[in-house]
Amino acid sequence: MTGFFDRHRAMLETAVQALHTRGYWTPFPEIPSGKFYGETAKADGQAAFAALQGGNFDLPGHPESHRLGAEISPFGPALGIAYPAADAPALIAAATAAAPALADVGPKARVGVCIEILTRLNRISFLLGHATMHTTGQAFAMAFQAGGPHAQDRGLEAVAMAWNEMTRFATEARWEKPQGKAAPIVLEKRWALVPAGIALTIGCNTFPTWNSYPGLFASLATGNPVIVKPHPAAILPLALTVRVAREVLAEAGLPADAVLLAVDAPGAEITKPLATDPAVKLIDYTGSNAFGDWLRGNAAQAQIFTEEAGVNSIAIAATDDFSGMCANLAFSLSLYSGQMCTAPQNIYIPRDGIDTDQGRQSFDEVAGGIAAAIDALLSDPARAAGICGAIANPATLARIDTARGLGRVIRDSAPVGQGRTASPLLLAVAAGDPVAEAECFGPVAFVVATRDADESTALASSLAARKGAITAALYDTDEPRIARAVAAFARAGVNLSVNLTGNIFVNQSAAFSDFHVTGANPAGNASLTDTAFVATRFHRAMWRRPAAA
Amino acid sequence: MTGFFDRHRAMLETAVQALHTRGYWTPFPEIPSGKFYGETAKADGQAAFAALQGGNFDLPGHPESHRLGAEISPFGPALGIAYPAADAPALIAAATAAAPALADVGPKARVGVCIEILTRLNRISFLLGHATMHTTGQAFAMAFQAGGPHAQDRGLEAVAMAWNEMTRFATEARWEKPQGKAAPIVLEKRWALVPAGIALTIGCNTFPTWNSYPGLFASLATGNPVIVKPHPAAILPLALTVRVAREVLAEAGLPADAVLLAVDAPGAEITKPLATDPAVKLIDYTGSNAFGDWLRGNAAQAQIFTEEAGVNSIAIAATDDFSGMCANLAFSLSLYSGQMCTAPQNIYIPRDGIDTDQGRQSFDEVAGGIAAAIDALLSDPARAAGICGAIANPATLARIDTARGLGRVIRDSAPVGQGRTASPLLLAVAAGDPVAEAECFGPVAFVVATRDADESTALASSLAARKGAITAALYDTDEPRIARAVAAFARAGVNLSVNLTGNIFVNQSAAFSDFHVTGANPAGNASLTDTAFVATRFHRAMWRRPAAA
Repeated sequence: MTGFFDRHRAMLETAVQALHTRGYWTPFPEIPSGKFYGETAKADGQAAFAALQGGNFDLPGHPESHRLGAEISPFGPALGIAYPAADAPALIAAATAAAPALADVGPKARVGVCIEILTRLNRISFLLGHATMHTTGQAFAMAFQAGGPHAQDRGLEAVAMAWNEMTRFATEARWEKPQGKAAPIVLEKRWALVPAGIALTIGCNTFPTWNSYPGLFASLATGNPVIVKPHPAAILPLALTVRVAREVLAEAGLPADAVLLAVDAPGAEITKPLATDPAVKLIDYTGSNAFGDWLRGNAAQAQIFTEEAGVNSIAIAATDDFSGMCANLAFSLSLYSGQMCTAPQNIYIPRDGIDTDQGRQSFDEVAGGIAAAIDALLSDPARAAGICGAIANPATLARIDTARGLGRVIRDSAPVGQGRTASPLLLAVAAGDPVAEAECFGPVAFVVATRDADESTALASSLAARKGAITAALYDTDEPRIARAVAAFARAGVNLSVNLTGNIFVNQSAAFSDFHVTGANPAGNASLTDTAFVATRFHRAMWRRPAAA
Repeated sequence: MTGFFDRHRAMLETAVQALHTRGYWTPFPEIPSGKFYGETAKADGQAAFAALQGGNFDLPGHPESHRLGAEISPFGPALGIAYPAADAPALIAAATAAAPALADVGPKARVGVCIEILTRLNRISFLLGHATMHTTGQAFAMAFQAGGPHAQDRGLEAVAMAWNEMTRFATEARWEKPQGKAAPIVLEKRWALVPAGIALTIGCNTFPTWNSYPGLFASLATGNPVIVKPHPAAILPLALTVRVAREVLAEAGLPADAVLLAVDAPGAEITKPLATDPAVKLIDYTGSNAFGDWLRGNAAQAQIFTEEAGVNSIAIAATDDFSGMCANLAFSLSLYSGQMCTAPQNIYIPRDGIDTDQGRQSFDEVAGGIAAAIDALLSDPARAAGICGAIANPATLARIDTARGLGRVIRDSAPVGQGRTASPLLLAVAAGDPVAEAECFGPVAFVVATRDADESTALASSLAARKGAITAALYDTDEPRIARAVAAFARAGVNLSVNLTGNIFVNQSAAFSDFHVTGANPAGNASLTDTAFVATRFHRAMWRRPAAA
C-alpha cells in the first residue's frame, strides 16, 4: 500500500525542506529537452497529441451517460475530442462511494499516490505542453513549462504542505496527570485524520493545470475525492491529468473514482449543481470575482479557495538601468499577451519624469521607452509568436478594441503570428482615471501620470487593497523610498518585485519559494501553498481511554 | 521591545513542544492553594472581588461615552459594577488607530506581551475565580479552574500555536536559479506578516474566559487589535482580562486600545454592528447555532470561528466496573448542572440490558444505577452545591420544567444549595424519540433504549454528524465492537472517551493535548488549538529583488 510512498520519500522530504527554507528547488526540469525527458519525448508528445485529436477520450470505468467536448485551438483547428460526461448527481455518487477507502488508507498511501501521479505527469510533459498550447493559446515553450513542470511543482508543493500538516502533531500520546501523592491518571490517546468531504476543483481557460493542481492535490492528499471541472474550452490538459490519476489510484488498490472529470458544455455548465451539493465541502476556484461572489453566496456548505481578478501595478520612480528596465517590462507585458494573473496592467510614472542612468527621462520618454522595447522584442515574427502566443477568449480581442478609445495610444495592439493574436496596447491616462481602476484582462496596459513616486506607490497599493492584486513591481534607486513602498505594498497584501532586469520577471511565481496570492486582498484567499490552504481540508478526531496497567 | 519575550521564552518553547507531543503539561497550577499562589492569594482575591462590587470599573484611556453593567450573581446578589461603554463606531475607530503599531512591532514583541498578560492573569486567578463564579453560576472550585488556570492554558496554547505558525517558514531567503553555463539568477526575498484586520471576540455566559481566550490571544499574537464583547451577564471576568491586557500593552510601548471592551445591555446589544463592520476580519463566537447562522449570513467580510450547540452522547454497551461507571457518569451529569458544552445529554443503552462485573443488568437497572449514583454523589448538601453550582440563565430552569413531561422520569431534578439551582433530571425515551434529537441545554439527560450496542453507536454518531457534538463516551468490553465505535465516532468528527472511571471525566478537555471541537461536525469550526485556528489570522507578503553582487 505504501510502495509509492517509499519510492518517493526522498523527493517528499526534500520538498518539505524546500517549503521551509524557500530557496530555489524543483525536481521537474523546465527545459523541454531530450536531455531531461528522453530523446524521443518530443516526437512522442507530438504523436500522442495528434492521436488524441478527433477521437473519443478514454477514461476506463468513469461514470458516463454521454460524450461532450468542443475545444477549438486559439491557433486555429478544432480538437474534436469527445470526453465521457455524466450529470452532477452521478459524479457526486461516484465520489461518495470512493470516499471511505480513500479516507481509511491513510496519509502515507495517499501522498505516495499523489507523487506517483505527478512524476507520471512529468513524463508526459510534452503531451501536456501541446494540450495546454491548443486550449489556452500559450506558445509551446510556455505551455510546456506552465502546463507541465511548473504545474507539477505547484502540485508537489501542495502535497508536501499537506504531508507536513498531517504529520505536524503526534497521532498518539500517553497523557499522565499527577494526582499529588495518589497514582497519576494515565490516558492513552489516538488521533485519526478525518477528511472534510468531496472536493470540487474548478479549472480556468488560461492555466488549466497550473491553477488546478494545488487544490486537486491538496484535497486528494488529505483524503477527499476530487471532482475536476475543467473550463469547457480547456478540457484536455485536465482530462489527461484525471486519466493518470485514476491509473495510479487503481494500481494502489484504491477506487479510481477518487478523481473524476466533470465535462460540460458552454451554456450548460454543471458547476452550480456540483458546487451546491451538500456533500461538497471543498471548492477550489480560479476565475472572475462575479462567480467567486456567487460561490460565497450559494455554496456556504463548503470551504472556498479562490484566485480572482485584480489589477497588478508597476511603479517607476527611478532606475540605474533604463534600457534593462524597459526590456524587462516589455517582456512582462508581451508574455502570453497579458493573460497571466500575474501580468502587470497599470504603470505609474511621475508626470515630471524620472532620474535614470541615461539622464532625466520625461513621462513620455519613459512610456515611449517601454513601447519601443516592446516593438524591438516583437520585431522578429517567430520570436513574437513564441512570446505572445494567442488569445484564449474571443472576448479579449473585443476588449482591446474598446480599450483603444479610453486613453492616449502610446503603442497600438496588432496581430502577431498565427491564430487569434494581439500584441500589447499601451495607453496613457491621468491619475484617478476610472479606466485604470478595474481589471482590463488581456494585452492592455495603462501608463498613469502621477505627482511623484510616493503618489505612484499610494495609488498602486490602495488599488491593490481595494480591487485586489497578485503582483506589483517597483523601479527605484532611493532606499528610504523603496522601504516606504515595501511597507505600503505589504500592507496591501501584494508580493512586490524590485528592480527586475534580465531574465527574471514580475509575472513569474516560483513554487516552493513564492507564495502565489497572499490572501490579504480581494485577488483571492488561496495562497499557494501556505498552511491555510491545506489545514482546513481535514480534521482530527481523538479517542482516549485509561492506559492498560 | 522584546523584554517580555525573553522573560517567557522558555515557557513558550515548552508550550510549543507540548502542542506537538500532546502529553500532559501546564504552567498554571489548577489547585486553588496558597502553596502555588501565595499564602495571601485567597484572601487577596476575595477582598479584590468585594472591592469591585457596587463601583465603577476603571479602564484608563478606554473609549467611554457612558457606563453600563447589570450583572446579577446566579447565587443571589447583584454585582452593581458599572463598566465604561462606547458605541460600535468609537470602538472600531480606536482599534483601527491601534492596528499599525501592533502590526509593525512584530511577532516576538506581541507573543511576549501575550504571555506576560497570561502570567499576570494567572496571579489574579482567585479574583478571576470569584468573578467567574458570580457571573456563570459555577461553584468556586470549578470557577477558579475554568475561569483561571484552565482558561490561561487555552490562551497560552493559542499563543504557542500562533508563534509556531508565524515562524514556520523562512522570513528571508536567497533564491538562486541555475542558468546552464550562464551566471545564475539570484534574488533576495523577504516576507512580512500581514495581520488580517480587526478581531471581534464574542463571549458566552457560561465560560466567559475559557471560551474567549483562544480567539483573543490568537488574534492578538498575530497582530490584530481585539474588541472583546462579553455576554451582558458575564462581563467582569473579561473586563479584568482587558484591564490586564491594556496595562501590559502600555508597558510594552504599544497602544492600549489594541484590546478593547465592548459592554452592552440585554436588548441593546452592539454585537451586530461590530460583527458587520467592514474593518472586522476575524470573529470568534461561542453560542447558539441561530446566531452562528446569522453571523455566517451577514458577516461574510470576516473569517468566523465558532463553537455552537450540539448533542453529546454516551453509549453503554458493557462494563467491567459497573459502579465505577455509574459514579463517573453521575459526576459528568451533575458538574455545573450540565451547562458545559462537553456535558453528555443522551445515554444509549440496549433495551435488553448489558453485561457487567455485577452480572447482567437490565435497561432499567443501568438507568437506575446512574440515578442512584447521582443521588449518592449529591447526598451531602455542601458537596452537592460544590459540584452543581447554580444555573446561569433563568430560561434553563424553565426548560427543565418543560422537559419533565417529555419522557418517563428516572430521576427528578431538585434545587441544590443557594441561589438558582437544579440537580440532573433523568428521563427514559425510546430510540428515535425527537426530544433526544436536539440540544436541551442544562441538567437534563435522556436515557434512550436501543436494539443493541451497535445501534447505540449508530444513533449517537449519526446524531453527532447531523446536529453536532463535542464529546462522546463509550463503555464496552468487546474490542472489535470498540473498534467499530471508534471508527464511527471519528467519521462523525467527535472526540470519544472510552471506559472512563475514577477522577477523569468525558467533560474534561485538556489544553495542549485534547483538540477541543474537531471542526468536522456542526458543533463548530474552531478547533482549540489546531493550525486552522491561527493560520488565517495573518498573511505573508513578499518583496524580492536581485541580490547585490
